[in-house]
Amino acid sequence: MSSASVGWVARRLAGALQRRLAPARVRLELWDGSSPYDGVDPPVGALVVRDARTLRRVLFDPHLHFGETYMTGTLEVRGGLEPVLEAVSRLSLTPTLRDRLTLRFPPANTPRRSRRNVHHHYDLGNDFYSGWLDRELLYTCAYFEHPDLTLERAQIAKMDLVCRKLRLRPGETVVEAGCGWGALALHMAREYGVRVKAFNISREQTAYARTRAAREGLASQVEFIEDDYRNVRGEYDVFVSVGMLEHVGLKHFPSLAAVLTRAVRRTCGRGLLHFIGRDQPRPLNAWIRRRIFPGGYPPALAEVATRVLAPARMSILDVENLRLHYARTLAHWSRRFAAMGDQVRTRYSEEFRRAWELYLAGSEAAFVTGSLQLFQVVFAPAEADPPHWTRAEIYRSAGPRASYELIGLD
Amino acid sequence: MSSASVGWVARRLAGALQRRLAPARVRLELWDGSSPYDGVDPPVGALVVRDARTLRRVLFDPHLHFGETYMTGTLEVRGGLEPVLEAVSRLSLTPTLRDRLTLRFPPANTPRRSRRNVHHHYDLGNDFYSGWLDRELLYTCAYFEHPDLTLERAQIAKMDLVCRKLRLRPGETVVEAGCGWGALALHMAREYGVRVKAFNISREQTAYARTRAAREGLASQVEFIEDDYRNVRGEYDVFVSVGMLEHVGLKHFPSLAAVLTRAVRRTCGRGLLHFIGRDQPRPLNAWIRRRIFPGGYPPALAEVATRVLAPARMSILDVENLRLHYARTLAHWSRRFAAMGDQVRTRYSEEFRRAWELYLAGSEAAFVTGSLQLFQVVFAPAEADPPHWTRAEIYRSAGPRASYELIGLD
Repeated sequence: MSSASVGWVARRLAGALQRRLAPARVRLELWDGSSPYDGVDPPVGALVVRDARTLRRVLFDPHLHFGETYMTGTLEVRGGLEPVLEAVSRLSLTPTLRDRLTLRFPPANTPRRSRRNVHHHYDLGNDFYSGWLDRELLYTCAYFEHPDLTLERAQIAKMDLVCRKLRLRPGETVVEAGCGWGALALHMAREYGVRVKAFNISREQTAYARTRAAREGLASQVEFIEDDYRNVRGEYDVFVSVGMLEHVGLKHFPSLAAVLTRAVRRTCGRGLLHFIGRDQPRPLNAWIRRRIFPGGYPPALAEVATRVLAPARMSILDVENLRLHYARTLAHWSRRFAAMGDQVRTRYSEEFRRAWELYLAGSEAAFVTGSLQLFQVVFAPAEADPPHWTRAEIYRSAGPRASYELIGLD
Repeated sequence: MSSASVGWVARRLAGALQRRLAPARVRLELWDGSSPYDGVDPPVGALVVRDARTLRRVLFDPHLHFGETYMTGTLEVRGGLEPVLEAVSRLSLTPTLRDRLTLRFPPANTPRRSRRNVHHHYDLGNDFYSGWLDRELLYTCAYFEHPDLTLERAQIAKMDLVCRKLRLRPGETVVEAGCGWGALALHMAREYGVRVKAFNISREQTAYARTRAAREGLASQVEFIEDDYRNVRGEYDVFVSVGMLEHVGLKHFPSLAAVLTRAVRRTCGRGLLHFIGRDQPRPLNAWIRRRIFPGGYPPALAEVATRVLAPARMSILDVENLRLHYARTLAHWSRRFAAMGDQVRTRYSEEFRRAWELYLAGSEAAFVTGSLQLFQVVFAPAEADPPHWTRAEIYRSAGPRASYELIGLD
């Protein structure tokens, strides 16, 4: 604890910040050990501010500087990072001018900038991600058929849920936009006998996916293409995209609509979009945008309906909101990430480690409180028949699948 | 067949109309028995035009005058009404100026006008509807767990699907907006032990529902209120509305949002909207608006998300599109309606009978071709937990229920 005294200006500012935090029952503590908290209820936890500059930054621009100062360690959290973030996330912070401008003038994600954005996040090293993701390296919301499923199983259940919703049939063709390390493409080919073209602009991920396809003898069925989704050519029975739409950006929804228009067979085609979304339009948190997901934007369902699906003359057949499943997925990731803290600190830096710790816990809080949603949307050309007569077919005979064995879970 | 000759103007007009119908493989026949059809493919069916005035009306304003002239019988259809309407419905007719104006300046459905609109349609006499609806008098899309389910069972399955999606628990309170003849309210009370307040502005329906509640000993659990949805007061665990949103009108979506805001408990509440919708905004067919559903508007999902659910701070949890189930429901209704043709003709008129025949067949065609959709949307306040951990719970142990016995189906 710093021994610097707290001047009267800082004391006034601290009072103002504490008044904002009080409804969340979060106690503010200053660098001299004092606190303006006078709540009668025991606090959920505390924010510890190490200096006057941090206090000013968090008070005047909390969206950005909570993260910035947490990263450097001049802001600390006591009582558990996730519960405190959950409490804070329930406060309705006024959108800043920056947020409103970002919504009004969304940044352009040109193919070049998309490549840079994706490189920033996804090319941190496959072994970084393999340290805390599941064995299949799925970096998207899992599906916990039962709340106590392991993460490994829940990720396989997610892939299966996607395939069942799409009702894949042997011999069909699938195009995947944004395929990560390739697990879903390989699962579709192995378990459902389809042929897949999978697009990704991350070099490291594509290289990994190709090696895996070759090792598993699926290279003739699955082609991994290092290219932008805008360059998808050809017609397919199925379009699927899991966790890419958040990176597309509102400005480019018409490009995605154009891809759907030309890529999905009109008579028998269908598709699925799995993405982080919102109840209503709001930009991604400013700090996450700066440090974690440059160019990211989780859209409202209505924005996807109006700007992607309607222009491509697609009917919405099925929407499922899995936000609590993403909260659980993130809790697993946080636990695993914490266990490899020393490695991350050594290989990157303490600042990097704290940034990721905050990003994972903050995302969990956002899904728990409903500030973020996770939507799976099944759609089909207006003139095509839906893949199922009733959704009951999706859930019939659900349960552990052959692939649990394949990856050694049984 | 009229013996009047076909002049050269009429022949030119007939040629123009035939060119529009040709892609649908529908043959046009004139009152002298001649036809400008020269399609090589055998036609799906034929439109028989009885006079020059009908020809002009159908050519220049098909949206309105197909129905107007079919009603009076100067337009006839050969080869099956539904298949021909299906073929015609696949043609993309240009929206008229009237359609565009209706979309831009939607009519106001004030409480007084709503009452008149509803009276126009729903107060035709309970025995009229009981002649062709199922035993429970459900005048909304049924849910065919299996395609060959009877209509009676499919309507019970629909009520059950709604209750399961909402996860009703004994002792909970439900408000229903637009309750028809009361079947769903009574089903919820009987099978799930909830207390229901059910609103309806149709006098005949409300009177019927009250009598039925008393007869079944459910009057203490279910209160039928003859009043407008805008007058819903109090807080409830569950809001449900099946087949009313189509009558609300875009202009009044904020009123419905206000009802949801005050009526649904924030911490544990949830709701379901079941409505006829569209892939994108488009007014209801002009003839249907004039003759069948004055003030009706089937909204796009995005319109409901943006203007009803987002302002009420509701999260969309689940959307299901059941359009083919509505097509099947309408096929059942058409068959039953045809069987009571003589009665309808005697009690009302041949014009009335033909109007309803066209409305039922035309709606079936619209659901088959995807020009209309049927959405069930489950929502909950952003801060409430979703009713289910996974949707599989909805489908577990699904099947014939106790109530099949109650109404004598087993």
